[in-house]
Amino acid sequence: MLVSGKPYRTAWLKPGEPQIVQIIDQRKLPWNFEVVDLVSVNDVCVAIKDMWVRGAGCIGVTAGYGMWLATLEALNDPDYKLGIRLGAKKLIKTRPTAVNLAWAVERQLEAILGARTETAALEAARSTAEAIADEDAGACRAIGRHGLEIVKQLSEKKNGAPVNILTHCNAGWLAFADYGSATAPIYAAQEAGIPVHVWVDETRPRNQGARLTAWELAQQRVPHTVIADNTGGHLMQHGQVDMVITGADRVTRCGDVANKIGTYLKALAARDNGIPFYVALPSSTIDWEMSDGVKEIPIEQRGGEEVTWMEGQTAGGKLENVRIFPEASGAANYAFDVTPARLVTGLITERGISPADEAALEKMFS
Amino acid sequence: MLVSGKPYRTAWLKPGEPQIVQIIDQRKLPWNFEVVDLVSVNDVCVAIKDMWVRGAGCIGVTAGYGMWLATLEALNDPDYKLGIRLGAKKLIKTRPTAVNLAWAVERQLEAILGARTETAALEAARSTAEAIADEDAGACRAIGRHGLEIVKQLSEKKNGAPVNILTHCNAGWLAFADYGSATAPIYAAQEAGIPVHVWVDETRPRNQGARLTAWELAQQRVPHTVIADNTGGHLMQHGQVDMVITGADRVTRCGDVANKIGTYLKALAARDNGIPFYVALPSSTIDWEMSDGVKEIPIEQRGGEEVTWMEGQTAGGKLENVRIFPEASGAANYAFDVTPARLVTGLITERGISPADEAALEKMFS
Repeated sequence: MLVSGKPYRTAWLKPGEPQIVQIIDQRKLPWNFEVVDLVSVNDVCVAIKDMWVRGAGCIGVTAGYGMWLATLEALNDPDYKLGIRLGAKKLIKTRPTAVNLAWAVERQLEAILGARTETAALEAARSTAEAIADEDAGACRAIGRHGLEIVKQLSEKKNGAPVNILTHCNAGWLAFADYGSATAPIYAAQEAGIPVHVWVDETRPRNQGARLTAWELAQQRVPHTVIADNTGGHLMQHGQVDMVITGADRVTRCGDVANKIGTYLKALAARDNGIPFYVALPSSTIDWEMSDGVKEIPIEQRGGEEVTWMEGQTAGGKLENVRIFPEASGAANYAFDVTPARLVTGLITERGISPADEAALEKMFS
Repeated sequence: MLVSGKPYRTAWLKPGEPQIVQIIDQRKLPWNFEVVDLVSVNDVCVAIKDMWVRGAGCIGVTAGYGMWLATLEALNDPDYKLGIRLGAKKLIKTRPTAVNLAWAVERQLEAILGARTETAALEAARSTAEAIADEDAGACRAIGRHGLEIVKQLSEKKNGAPVNILTHCNAGWLAFADYGSATAPIYAAQEAGIPVHVWVDETRPRNQGARLTAWELAQQRVPHTVIADNTGGHLMQHGQVDMVITGADRVTRCGDVANKIGTYLKALAARDNGIPFYVALPSSTIDWEMSDGVKEIPIEQRGGEEVTWMEGQTAGGKLENVRIFPEASGAANYAFDVTPARLVTGLITERGISPADEAALEKMFS
């Protein structure tokens, strides 16, 4: 998608210098847009571990490119297959719970180690890295196409008045190779000339909505408004939200959705006001082993300092971290919550829109 | 309640110098505890208008003391009744929508102008100011007594394990003369030796939970944890909340509750998880003219800068305002929302606990 009018993905090979992987340092957003060169597997490991890149799809894509660098490096080793395996191990260790990361690395291992010659291995590593990125972008694009149909219908019902879409956290292109999941139908609507307006939940405590989603939408010139996470219910009561679309970190085979903390509260408000609540996801997000999300999905607890401290820019333009309440009070920081399938109107996947239930999901992905 | 171990109210006459009204400058909290001398009606007007004091009860009490200063000042006027009326006018104008303010000033006017002599007027002004403060504190104390019964029952059910109470915004003693509304049952439980733990919603955008409620509870040594407003639903799904108590800015005669934005989302989650949701309020908060809260209660929209900018302390201990997302994105700031009576388990008032419906409220307050 666009940054200062120029199209970008979140990770790519440097044009003319394919031995360099480039990424956007997402820690610096929204204040600074910085493209960083990654020239070794170690560089890629640091970028993933320290969250220069984040979001399931984007991590998988970056790891795919990391395996390309691992292959290049291994050519200097006496045993290049061992070198590649070591690179893979390092990459997988950076964020052990990231399913897409492990999946991308395994897929690369199979392709690279299956090659008969070192030249073929190099070719496999590079083409597989590009394929992982292209498929990720393609899945998001397909999610956009399917989601667009819903936006179109709402637009027609409103006689072309802007469709108000509420979203939570960042399930935008920055979290994937391109397009995003929750944002894909929004960008598709924009492309189709359907007027939309996005309510962006700031998404405390890490503010991914205010920092990333709002930045994406501003770069893409999609009309949007940032709101405190407390606000959605009121807007829904007063007809100011036509639909909700969020992303997902994990979806059980029964359609329960783990996503950023606070998603469940918006789903409840949508249900209470008869507003459609959609979750957009590539099907790789579905965990076929799990059924009851509330009972089974482990919820990560992160450091309280993410609640206590806030980064921003002073009036003088200086980046500064401030503590927003005194040390005498502790903080708890649950990163995700689970929205039960009964509150989900539909799951927008690359194959189409599925009801959030086991039979329908199995049918679509059998 | 206690500040550094010493009991305070939010407004009082300076001991030994009753011609001076003292208040806590709540803008400085939680970073600094500063008591300010108010020596004129103008001082009181500034303190109310610029939110050195805030919260319905606290504003009413401060205005009551303001009328005492108005009476002292008017003694120098050729027409002291005119002077008193002018003082009253000034005070009422500071925050036109504050019902308690107008009520306190009217009550003072009646008492002061009804006095036969200037000496009697002075006596009336002072005793009425003290009565307003005492009655406000008394109502909160009674709310605490009634609410305590609910906490007791939950404690017994849990065999004495701490009762987890979630609250939103600040309906604490800082918003009244003393004790608070939502906090009164908590302080009463502490006094009765019943272990409680409070989940404090930070309450974006103005952070009154993180800044004021957490400070109150820390001063009073009540165990508590600050959470992002997104968190309550997850905690309720996992049995970590035993009850919710919030305050109210306005309650319709049918029991709909206008309170800080986000209250409605917590009420939905409480209902979805079978957790009791109580609203604590002095009956002066009931608006007998209104029935349907969602349709009738006007919701104040405040400046977007409250969403965009955040105050905190740097690691070096300096107070600093930071902008948390760039200017390219706008913000909307709705200050309140309405929780329909159907989601409210009960209204804890100074007269007792009433179901949130018209017949029950009329019966209790007829």
